[in-house]
Formats: sequence, structure tokens, C-alpha cells
Amino acid sequence: MNFKLLSQDGKARVGELETFYGKIETPVFMPVGTLASVKGITKQTLEKLNYDIILSNTYHLMLRPGLKIIKNIGGLNKFMSWNKSILTDSGGFQVMSLGNNVQVDNEGVTFRSHIDGELIRLNAEKAMDIQYNLGSTISMIFDECVPYPYSYYDTEESLKRSVEWSKRSKKAYKRREGYGVFGIVQGGMYKDLRENSIRENLEHDFDGYAIGGLAVGEGKDILNDITAFTSNLLPENKPRYLMGVGYPEDILNAVKHGVDMFDCVLPTRSGRTGLAFTSVGTIKIRNSKYSNDKTPLDPDCSCEVCSNYSKAYLHHLVKSSEILGSVFLTQHNLSFYSNLMKNIRSAIKKNNLNNLKV
Amino acid sequence: MNFKLLSQDGKARVGELETFYGKIETPVFMPVGTLASVKGITKQTLEKLNYDIILSNTYHLMLRPGLKIIKNIGGLNKFMSWNKSILTDSGGFQVMSLGNNVQVDNEGVTFRSHIDGELIRLNAEKAMDIQYNLGSTISMIFDECVPYPYSYYDTEESLKRSVEWSKRSKKAYKRREGYGVFGIVQGGMYKDLRENSIRENLEHDFDGYAIGGLAVGEGKDILNDITAFTSNLLPENKPRYLMGVGYPEDILNAVKHGVDMFDCVLPTRSGRTGLAFTSVGTIKIRNSKYSNDKTPLDPDCSCEVCSNYSKAYLHHLVKSSEILGSVFLTQHNLSFYSNLMKNIRSAIKKNNLNNLKV
Repeated sequence: MNFKLLSQDGKARVGELETFYGKIETPVFMPVGTLASVKGITKQTLEKLNYDIILSNTYHLMLRPGLKIIKNIGGLNKFMSWNKSILTDSGGFQVMSLGNNVQVDNEGVTFRSHIDGELIRLNAEKAMDIQYNLGSTISMIFDECVPYPYSYYDTEESLKRSVEWSKRSKKAYKRREGYGVFGIVQGGMYKDLRENSIRENLEHDFDGYAIGGLAVGEGKDILNDITAFTSNLLPENKPRYLMGVGYPEDILNAVKHGVDMFDCVLPTRSGRTGLAFTSVGTIKIRNSKYSNDKTPLDPDCSCEVCSNYSKAYLHHLVKSSEILGSVFLTQHNLSFYSNLMKNIRSAIKKNNLNNLKV
Repeated sequence: MNFKLLSQDGKARVGELETFYGKIETPVFMPVGTLASVKGITKQTLEKLNYDIILSNTYHLMLRPGLKIIKNIGGLNKFMSWNKSILTDSGGFQVMSLGNNVQVDNEGVTFRSHIDGELIRLNAEKAMDIQYNLGSTISMIFDECVPYPYSYYDTEESLKRSVEWSKRSKKAYKRREGYGVFGIVQGGMYKDLRENSIRENLEHDFDGYAIGGLAVGEGKDILNDITAFTSNLLPENKPRYLMGVGYPEDILNAVKHGVDMFDCVLPTRSGRTGLAFTSVGTIKIRNSKYSNDKTPLDPDCSCEVCSNYSKAYLHHLVKSSEILGSVFLTQHNLSFYSNLMKNIRSAIKKNNLNNLKV
């Protein structure tokens, strides 16, 4: 897996990540396809919107449909008929947030499935094995993500485990041409712990480094501060990925600190609940003031949804629980995010990022 | 509105219906877009599947979003951004089956909305006015549809109302170039009443004639018998439309009796519940035997769904309640129905309809 920087504007960078499936220009946003499907969006639409990489969730896929089935079909790309890159998380974060009776010990995690209550064990080796068999273009190491707020002592204890698991993950990872594995910086909101985590991570020479443990309720100031601090200490020549972030303004801020990759459920989940991102702010399409509004969602958007449909029609679809209501709002939001990233890259190339408004 | 016959095989016919929005080859199947949306299916997909006409429901649209909004936007075609033909029912059938406290009198129907309980009056003039303002390419006259079984006496009484309403509907209908209005033959399962109904209908020289009041639980033999009897008495030079039918074999049978147009929720509703129509019979994709099945839904289908996805993936999507599960199964079913009609037309042209198996 290759990464090269093409352009810089302050700390912000435009880069090119080359994987087995092709080139990805960064900064990039990865739509979330939790269960091997970006909810409501076909691959043709993703391709039309210029998405070259999506994220999928190991935890969810190991429970449903289960690794055996995806492996039998030849991996996640083939299963979902997606011929571009896929990044998978390692499952750690979602075990902690979704599993029942989660028991963390120094070796790994035991939990009950949120689907059928089955008792399941996950550890570094298993997480890497699953991602290998999924055929993930980018695998993430297995780590522990702590909540916010969390004491210094507990965060330090957790980080020891993450460091150990990271080492074991790297060891268990099987290298393939065009595929890669990313380390994850943890350490909560404590900068010295973040520094420790980075130091440990760098020993393994990962293909990229993620900033984990943020967007957990710490607020925008801390998010911004820890992102800046962490990104600044990461090597220049590797992609930096801020996990689970997020809002357009948070993405722009992080890009200014040198972050290259993002994922978030925001555009897709919001689409399903009737919230649209537009050039003039967010729109709650269920609001009755849109029931008779002939204008498109976003006057500055040329996506298929804005080119074809009025707010009145989208309001009607969402109010009537029509499938196309979710589909169209998600599609528009993904178009908005795709344009956001394109505008960010273009501004960096023009050394004009500070004037970009999102 | 023009209709000409292109080819015949026994009583079966291939015809061409030309409306304001273009040509429609018959026999044709009209997907149902109840609330101004064929559930889960974009217009691009409908166009790719060669659908030139859809059906929409006056009763549903008058309740939600309401006529005012659709009229304000410039009609149903503009509202849903569909640039091909739309046939609307007159609302009568659905008032009877969906409304609360339905009161039928000789002038019209009073009922409570199934959405908000509002008291609503519908009659011939209002049904035609709504369809005019929707901009329906083909309007249906306002009639009464009786249940099955139903006594001769009650059916006769109902037919008197339908005859009167039909006359008033025709009078209220405002002619526009390329648009048309269809009469509806009622009379339940009583052939002499059907004959009366046809005689009355023919006096109004409608642009087409529908066979109504079937597929209400009478069983396939009676359906077939009444369809044959009625179709046979309708004029050769006008399209014949069998309302609400249905299953592929029922469509084929009706075509053999000279029917030209069909609508049914079957392919769309079945898609949403995980039932697929295939060349080897129906498939319940939720069945666990498909959980690890690498083959496509239908080995003989070249639709986008069958070209890209395995039964295992579709099983997973449907079991996981992923939006794309409903979307893909509906899309495949609509492809199946589109091919069914194409094969029927092609067999008629080759004088080979009797050898066609569905």
C-alpha cells in the first residue's frame, strides 16, 4: 500500500493512497457500510458520487451473516459486489458499545451478541484473522476504546492493554500486496498518554495511523485540541485517520491539523431520519414548512436528488415512510460529503484552505 | 390518445397506445406507485426496466400529500419527476377497502380518512376533478366495486349506481390531447350484469375499458371465466385493462382472452417481504437454505441484481432489514415482470403464445 503527498497548505495535505483496488485521493470521507451495505445506497450511486473506499464493521459482520458465509463467497468485496477499497474496524469499539455483559481482560474481550445472546470471545489474533478473511483492504488493529469522562489511572491501564493488543495485532497481520494495516492512537484526553501511545505505535511501522477514542462526548474544543496534538506527532509520510468524525466543520478542522481520512454514520443515518446537509445549513425535511416548497433541498447542489425533486416531494416521501425518502436524503447527504471533500482537496491545492467555509 | 393493434395471435393482441408522454406497447404491466413513488424504485430504474406507464392511487394521494400540493407543483408527473404516462384509479375501490365508516349513497361516498379520521366526500365529479388536477394520463371513471361473494340483487343495485356514476364521470371529464378516460365494467360474477355494464359503457365511447371487480377472492376459475366473457364483448379497437391482476399465469391467461393492460402490487409488495419471482418459481429469500448460496436469484435473469448479487447476500440484506434488501428484490421482480410482458408480446408477434410458459 502506497501513500504519497501531492500538495500541502499549512499542515493540511492532499495525498494519494494506492491500494489493491486503485487510487484514493485524500482527505477522504468513507461512508459507513456496517452490514456490508451502505444503507439504501447502491454501488452504482457510490461510484457516481466518486467514493473509492467505504468502511465496514467487523463486529456486525462476525455476528451477521458471520465470517463463514462471507469467506465462502470469497470475501467482503465479492459478497457485496464492491470493487473498490474497504476499511474495516477491528470490532473493539463496537464490542464495548453494543455487546452485552462485556468482560475485558488482558488477553481480550468476552461478550454476548446483541443479536442472539451468544457468548463470543474476541482478541487481537481473532480480529486480525476475521479481517484477513473478509479481505479488508485496510485492517485496523484490535484495541480498547475508553469512554468519556474516564480517569487518568483507568485510561493508563486501558492503554497498556491496547499497546499489547496492538503488538499482537501487528504480529498476527498477514501482509498482502496492496493491502495494509493501521495502528490506532489511544490515551483518552491525556496528552502524555497519547504521546506514549504514538511512541508504541511507531515501533510497528504501520501503513497508517488512526486517532481513536475521540467523538465520544468530549465536546468540540477537546476534540480539536487532542486531534491537533496527536496529528502533529504522527509521521508525515503515512495517512492519518480520525475515527468516527463527523460533522463538516470537525472534518475541516481536522484536515487543517493534517488528518487525511474520515468515517462517520452522520450523512447516512441523518438521511434516514430526514436530516439533510446543505450549503445553507441542515434541513429537517419533516418540518411542515417544506410541505409545499417547490425548491430543491440545496440550491447549490447538482446531485440527482436536487436536480429532480422538490422539498415538497421529499417531505411527502419522508412523512409517508416511503423507502425512497431515506434513499434520496442519504444520497443527497453523501453527495454533499463527497463535494465537501472535493472542495477541501481543491482548496489545499490552491493554498486557499483558510478561506473555505463549510 | 391513440390505440392501434400491431399483431394478433388468437384473441391475444399486441398493440400500441400513444399518449401525451409517448408510446406504450401492450400487453403492458403497470407497476403501482400508490403514494407517488413505486416503493424503493427510482425513475432511472423504472426506465432501465422499460416501464412506460405506472399506476398511482387517487384515494391515497388526495389524503397525502393532498391535491393542493400536487396541483401547486404542476401535477403528479412533475411532483414525482416522472416523464412518462400515469394511470390513476378513481379512488372508489380504495375508499371501499381502506376508508372507515364508508357510507355509500346514490350520489357518492362518504368516509373517514384512514390517516387522520377526517370526514371526506367523494363522488364522480370530484374523482374526475382530482384526476384532472393530478394530470393523470389515463383517468378512470368513478365506480363502486362489490366484494365477493355478493348477492345478485345487491350486485344489480350497485351496478345501477356505477352506471350512473360512469355517465357523470364521462360528463365531468375534461378532454386533453394525448390524455384519456377509461370506463370500468362491473357486474360481479353475474354474466348478464356484466353484459348490461358493457352495453352502458359502450354508449360513452371511452378511450379504453377496464374489467373491474375481479381478483377479490373469487378464485382462478371464476377470474378466468369472467375475464374471458367480458373481454370478448369489448370493442377490438380499444385497450382492455384487467384491474389488480396479478400473478404471471393470470396475466398470461387474460392476455389469451385479449386483455392489454395490467396492474398489481404483487412484484413490488412481494419484493418488500422477501419473495422473488424467478424462471424456476418463487423464492422466499429469508429461507435459511439460501444463507450460503452463491448463485443469483434467477439463473436466467440478467437484471442488475442477478448480475451482481448472490442469494446469500440478498438473504443477509433481507434478514438484516437492510433497505437494499427491499430495493433489490423489488427491482428484480419488476425486471421479471418487464421480461414477462416482453416475452408475451414477442410470442404473440410470432404466433407462438400457446407455447409460452410462465
